[in-house]
Order: sequence, then C-alpha cells, then structure tokens
Amino acid sequence: MIENAFYSQENHGPFHLYELGDFSLEEGGVIPQCKLAYATHGQLNAEKNNAILVPTWFSGTSKDYESYIGEGRALDPKLYFIIVVNQLGNGLSSSPHNSPSPIGMSNFPHVRIGDDVRAQHQFITGHFGITELALVVGGSMGAQQTYEWAVRYPDMVKRAAPIAGTAKNTIHDFIFTQTLMDAITSDPAWNDGEYQSNTDVADGLKRHADIWAVMGFTTEFFNQEKWGLFGVETVDELMAGFLEPFFQLMDPNALLVMGWKWQRGDVSRHTDNDLAAALGRIKAKTFVMPIDRDMFFPPSDCEREQQLIPNSELKVITSIAGHFGLFGGEGEDYHGQVDGYLKELLAASVVESVNE
Amino acid sequence: MIENAFYSQENHGPFHLYELGDFSLEEGGVIPQCKLAYATHGQLNAEKNNAILVPTWFSGTSKDYESYIGEGRALDPKLYFIIVVNQLGNGLSSSPHNSPSPIGMSNFPHVRIGDDVRAQHQFITGHFGITELALVVGGSMGAQQTYEWAVRYPDMVKRAAPIAGTAKNTIHDFIFTQTLMDAITSDPAWNDGEYQSNTDVADGLKRHADIWAVMGFTTEFFNQEKWGLFGVETVDELMAGFLEPFFQLMDPNALLVMGWKWQRGDVSRHTDNDLAAALGRIKAKTFVMPIDRDMFFPPSDCEREQQLIPNSELKVITSIAGHFGLFGGEGEDYHGQVDGYLKELLAASVVESVNE
Repeated sequence: MIENAFYSQENHGPFHLYELGDFSLEEGGVIPQCKLAYATHGQLNAEKNNAILVPTWFSGTSKDYESYIGEGRALDPKLYFIIVVNQLGNGLSSSPHNSPSPIGMSNFPHVRIGDDVRAQHQFITGHFGITELALVVGGSMGAQQTYEWAVRYPDMVKRAAPIAGTAKNTIHDFIFTQTLMDAITSDPAWNDGEYQSNTDVADGLKRHADIWAVMGFTTEFFNQEKWGLFGVETVDELMAGFLEPFFQLMDPNALLVMGWKWQRGDVSRHTDNDLAAALGRIKAKTFVMPIDRDMFFPPSDCEREQQLIPNSELKVITSIAGHFGLFGGEGEDYHGQVDGYLKELLAASVVESVNE
Repeated sequence: MIENAFYSQENHGPFHLYELGDFSLEEGGVIPQCKLAYATHGQLNAEKNNAILVPTWFSGTSKDYESYIGEGRALDPKLYFIIVVNQLGNGLSSSPHNSPSPIGMSNFPHVRIGDDVRAQHQFITGHFGITELALVVGGSMGAQQTYEWAVRYPDMVKRAAPIAGTAKNTIHDFIFTQTLMDAITSDPAWNDGEYQSNTDVADGLKRHADIWAVMGFTTEFFNQEKWGLFGVETVDELMAGFLEPFFQLMDPNALLVMGWKWQRGDVSRHTDNDLAAALGRIKAKTFVMPIDRDMFFPPSDCEREQQLIPNSELKVITSIAGHFGLFGGEGEDYHGQVDGYLKELLAASVVESVNE
C-alpha cells in the first residue's frame, strides 16, 4: 500500500465503502475484504423499484457523475435512488495502491467487467435488497458494465443506456488501450508496478495523457480551438495545465488494472463468443448512445451492436469534444441531449417484474 | 555514422544521390555536402515541361511510390519525367545515421519542409535545368511539401495534388506526432540519440508502430478485419508480423527528424501566419485529395484549406484503410481513384510559362 492523496473524500467524496468479503475473480485469484466505493443520491422507495445504477468510466470516480444528477434532470434524486458505484481498481474501490499484501501494487489480480458487475450485484442486493433496476446507465467503461448488467441479469435490468461504449470491445480499442498502458509501463520508474509514489511515474503518466488527447477529443475540437469547453484558454493550458497533471495525480497501477479490464470487455463470453446471442438476452429497454465524433467508440461500432438488441434504439449524441464529451465539456448542450434521451427512456413502459 | 542495412539500394533502389554542397537550413545550421536521394522514371523532353515531382512521406522512400507509377497510369513514364525525391532525414537523403561529424546522430540539425523544397528546387533546376513542373504530387508529408512548392514557387508549379496532408499542420496532428516521437525518446536505449544500432531502440520503435496502428488505419478497417489488404490474415500478423518490424528496421533519429519537421509544416510562414494569403499565392491548378476516413488529416481539415486556393477542387478518396490507404492497401480501388483524379488534373489546361 502507498499513499495517494488524490483518492480522498475531499476530492471524490462523499463516498462510502461497502465490504463484499473475500471476492473471487473470473480470472482466478481473490480480493480479500473487497471494497466497493459508492455514492448515493435520493431515497430508495418502499417498492424498491426506483433504483438507478451508474458504474464509472476509465480513470473516473463517482464524483464525475455529479454533473449528470440533479433535480429536474433525468437522474433526479427526488424521483430516483441513484447509486454511483466505483469500478474495482479505480483507486477508490479495492485497487492496487490501497490493498494490503498479498494483493498490493504489482500483485493486484486481473479484474474483468464481469467481476465488477457481480460485485455490484452482490452489493445492491445484499445491502439494499434491490431486485430490480429502473435503469443502468454509464459512459465508456461504464457502458461496458451497463451491457454486462443487461446481459447477465436480464430480468433485473428494466432499462439500459450505454453511453459511448461497446458490449464487445473492438480490436482497434484493444490496441489503443495498449498504447495507453505501454506509455506507463515503458517508464523505468514504473518499476514493474513497485514504485514508491505515483509521482515517480510522472513521465509515463504524461505520455499516457498525451495519447488520450489525440484520441479523446476530435480533430474538429482542435481545429475550432474549443478549449473553452474545459475552462481553459489555450491548448497548452489544456494539455500541460489540465490533462497531463490530471492523469499524473492518478495511480499508475490503477490505470493499468482498468486498461486490462477495458481491453477484454465482452458480453459474448456468456454465449461462447456469439455476440448476437448475448445481446439477444437483453430484456431491458435499451438506448444505445454513442457520441457522433467519438474516435474510438464510433457510432458505427455501437450501431452494429444496437441492431442485435431486441428492444433498443440508437440515440446519437452530438459533441465536438468527442469521447471527452462525457465530461460534459459542452455544458448544457451535451447534458441537454443526455437528459432528453434518458427522460424518454425512463418514461418508457417496460415489462414489470413479478415481485418474487 | 552507424550502419543500417535497411536504407540500401537493395531495399529502396534504384536511387541516385545528388550533392547540393553545403546546405543552410531555415532554423540555422548547415548540412555539409548535403545529399538528396532520388529516383527517376521516364525522360525529360526537349521543352523540359513534362516533369513531375513527387516528394516522400514520413518514414517513406522513393520506393514507396513505385506503385503509383506505370505505363497507362496517370504517372506514366512514357509521357512524363517523374522525379521521386527523398525528403531530408528520411534515411536515404542526408540523415542522422549517414552523416559524419559534426552533424551525425544526435547532432543532426532541425530541418523544415521549406528546407526540403529549397533543396529540391536547387536540385531540379541545377541538375536538370527544369523551370516548370507539370505536377507536384505527394502523400502526407509529401502533401506538405507539395503545398510548400506551390506557395513558394507559384510560377513554376503548374499543377499540384496534395494527397492526405495539409498546408498548415493542425494542433491535433502536432500532438499526435509528439506521441509518436515520445514513444521513441522514452526508450532509455535511445540514449539521447546516441545508440549503437537502431535495434537497440526496438522497444520504442514497437510502441511507435502501435500508435501508428491506432491512428493510421480506421475503426472500420479493424471492424471488418481488412488485414487482407496488407497481405496478412490476422491482426497479429498485421502488428507483430508487419507494422512493428517495419518500423523497427528504421533509424530512430531519422523518424525524429521527420516528426519534428511534420509538426511544423506551415505555408503561412511565408505570409506572417496568414494562411489565406499564403494559399492565395498558389497559381497551380490544384486537386486537394484527402482520404475520407483519415483519422488525422480528415477531409474537413483539408477542405478548409482547399477553399482558400484559387484554382482548386476537392477530390475525396475513399479508403477503409484510412491514412494507410496511401500504401495502396486497397489495391486497384485506391489506385484507380488516384489515377483518375491525377489524369483529370494532368489533362486540365493551365497557364503556360513564358519560356524565359
């Protein structure tokens, strides 16, 4: 275990920790006393049918979704009980830097999207007694978890909204993610995962951030110099003032755990690599919501999957910021679109569960 | 100087060397006994008005354009005298690994696109007595040189066809290129440019190749598993069997010289950063030819420039291979489009030079 002040209540709270006990992983290995960090908004109703689950994206935490939640919004805490759950390895939930021996640092085991979803299932059923989810919604790796939820627990998930992500990761994304990971592991100071501080790996984390800049935004974002969407005035401020220090605060091993997981997200693991069969299991009313200019989860990849989901619609979000539109960089415009689609989805009637 | 068997007549010939003498550079510094490597196809006619100049792309050599040249093609050696000239720093022309002290290896000076074009101008006027070019055509960094030719020597260039490249490099491309360069320089074996052999830097060159894979192809290329266009059957063969060893053969410092140059390509240096004024100088009939799915020279960036060029048309090439369509990965389909546009351009009447 090492200290990393970034993953604090001050920066990412308020969040709570739920102890799952010893949690066995799909790739083998166990996370002893596995912890899920989560935040909630609103109240669970008596029928326990107003819960919305929101899983986090790569490098993100529950804090990132606060801009998606609010009174009068789609994710309205007056109406819904919104559980934002941090994926394993993200720095708040059980992760390399905060886990004791025998799974600390370089010894942290491989985690899969399926592990996250099983852990989240154990958490919300065990802790809250929730047996149905009005909606699962998440962006990027949050979309991967959303798909996994809808395929793995089809009777439980009433509605699903994967934003800017895929059910089966593409080969292109695998290679892209590898370049992100290699940027870190090529730093000699990474030291096979046994550094003393994330700051040792500042060079690798900077390179990792720079590759994100190439793929995370869009060519049009740069052409139109849309830095203002992220509150800065120059591209240097965007890179050296925001994106690079942002990733440099993070734990390198955490990013690697998430990267490995992202590369292998694939609901067709449930159906012997038959993606159509896996997506055909989904009972949720599903809105597939790619971002139009996303350079690595392009609408074409998302639409192909959407067409395999029985009760689904394609809802393309427009954002010049591309994948990083997820940060809400276009302000009201981005959130207006997301809220509009999610309100439409939440208003859609679905097959209600028989109360077991 | 170090040996690198890749840059041989066997691999890239036949090519010739032209000595420019001591060549002064825009950034300061001199390349003593500067050499341009070139190949020619066809014969210069008596009027010396059938010359076509073709400058090379990043990491490429004159050999790469052989697939663009042939009897009955647009670049027909029966009709034209085609000069394919290797950019400075590309490993065949004067470059870090083949230059003696005081400019060998890490001491090789910064070279700009303008240096290449001045060197090429000195070469073709001095060696061949050419005072007009029927066409300048090149892909990627070859397009950068094409634009520079048309702006710098507007009376000399009758037709111009920049393929998959820009007149003023974009901020996005600058950052992308930086990630390519950082992949190399982050390898400790690069040793600030003073390695013993390019093979020392195999890890950095592999990472460089992997980033190319992310941006050089397209998401659709990966989705449709179009490896066959490059003569291989799996993505592993594409990466570990082709792309990675391909770049690992090259000289790291050569790639860095070209990368630095690419980042700063900008014809508006002639006009106090006024791009419209620079492109307005072009007298050549110009076909701007982006590739539709190019992830870093997208048609939108190219079209904006095309609209600033007086006698120009936008001709978008379709290729699922994206930027790497330049390699002719789509075979006859790609080359059919390029040949069609170039034939149309070569058939277009232009303002003839008064024979001075």
